[in-house]
Amino acid sequence: MKRIADSTVRRLSAYLRFLEDFEGRGLSTISSDELAKRGGTTSAQVRKDLSFFGSFGKRGLGYSVPELAGRLREILGLGKEWRVVIIGAGKIGAALAQYRGFRQRGFIILGAYDSNSEKVGRNLDGIAIRDINQFETDVKRDRPDIVVLTVPAEQAQAVLDRVVRAGIKAVLNFAPTQLQAPADVTVKTVNMAMELEGLSFALTNRE
Amino acid sequence: MKRIADSTVRRLSAYLRFLEDFEGRGLSTISSDELAKRGGTTSAQVRKDLSFFGSFGKRGLGYSVPELAGRLREILGLGKEWRVVIIGAGKIGAALAQYRGFRQRGFIILGAYDSNSEKVGRNLDGIAIRDINQFETDVKRDRPDIVVLTVPAEQAQAVLDRVVRAGIKAVLNFAPTQLQAPADVTVKTVNMAMELEGLSFALTNRE
Repeated sequence: MKRIADSTVRRLSAYLRFLEDFEGRGLSTISSDELAKRGGTTSAQVRKDLSFFGSFGKRGLGYSVPELAGRLREILGLGKEWRVVIIGAGKIGAALAQYRGFRQRGFIILGAYDSNSEKVGRNLDGIAIRDINQFETDVKRDRPDIVVLTVPAEQAQAVLDRVVRAGIKAVLNFAPTQLQAPADVTVKTVNMAMELEGLSFALTNRE
Repeated sequence: MKRIADSTVRRLSAYLRFLEDFEGRGLSTISSDELAKRGGTTSAQVRKDLSFFGSFGKRGLGYSVPELAGRLREILGLGKEWRVVIIGAGKIGAALAQYRGFRQRGFIILGAYDSNSEKVGRNLDGIAIRDINQFETDVKRDRPDIVVLTVPAEQAQAVLDRVVRAGIKAVLNFAPTQLQAPADVTVKTVNMAMELEGLSFALTNRE
């Protein structure tokens, strides 16, 4: 398959949310125009995004809402449970541990890790905080798919290296720093300041 | 100005981070190729993204790192201080209040609001938690530019309506729900599950 850009995947996730909203309201078909309008994009973009994954919809009839939603769930890998661990039991880790949206989407948080012995043994909103020294042993047993990295920026690369050596192929990084990983490991960095920059841009470039 | 897509703005933010990294390492010029490689995109995309904002760089010589970084800061509105308030003093609010990356970028958190009388008067990592009933009065005095919304999904639309009525034009929403706002108000929703979907997609569609 052709390499799909992050921004395309992000739009697919957004389309799925709109479709689920339409499903909830009992609508059975939707045009690429309506989908585009909800997503702040163009219908040409919607058709192009979907065309990567085969042919959808009938000309003039639009897309079947449940069919397209089902196919998008498949494309996004949402048909199964994904096993997630959090490394770094600080405030961001705590906020994520209690985030209800994960489980709804099939992302199951198995546990959290920290190097601070005062935190180890406690729990983060019902999720046990384990010693980071146990991580490699636990990975063999628990086989997590995804690591969420919420450690301080200075430690992030070293922890990522360790996560990569343990065989993890997908990492969501919250440390505000650029990380290096081998090509077969996907690292997505969530940068909160970058989200705010989208707003300072909008405020600065208002008509 | 032509409407710039969110994904373009996101890439501009990323380019700025790479340029600052290059600046820190004492590099004075960079090609669109190198910028593209760091950003996981193509040099044609880099040139197109920058072309919205005038002409940059010299053919064959690449871009001047400090010049392009300065111009991107200007485009993103990072030359000034932005006044931010958080509504919802829960765990996500707390995680954001302590996030050091905001102040570095000129986003100053003025305060947090909550409706829970047990939280009001306390503080969130040094940031005072005020009564939400004070919000409208405070807005007139403090003139915040941006509201960060970290309230439960069920309350998000009602709180957003209130924020809009108070005259705020930019909102960063963490509630996992679609919100409606007038066209002159920019609402960006950060959806944590959507970030994880980028990873389940990558794991599902590996070569």
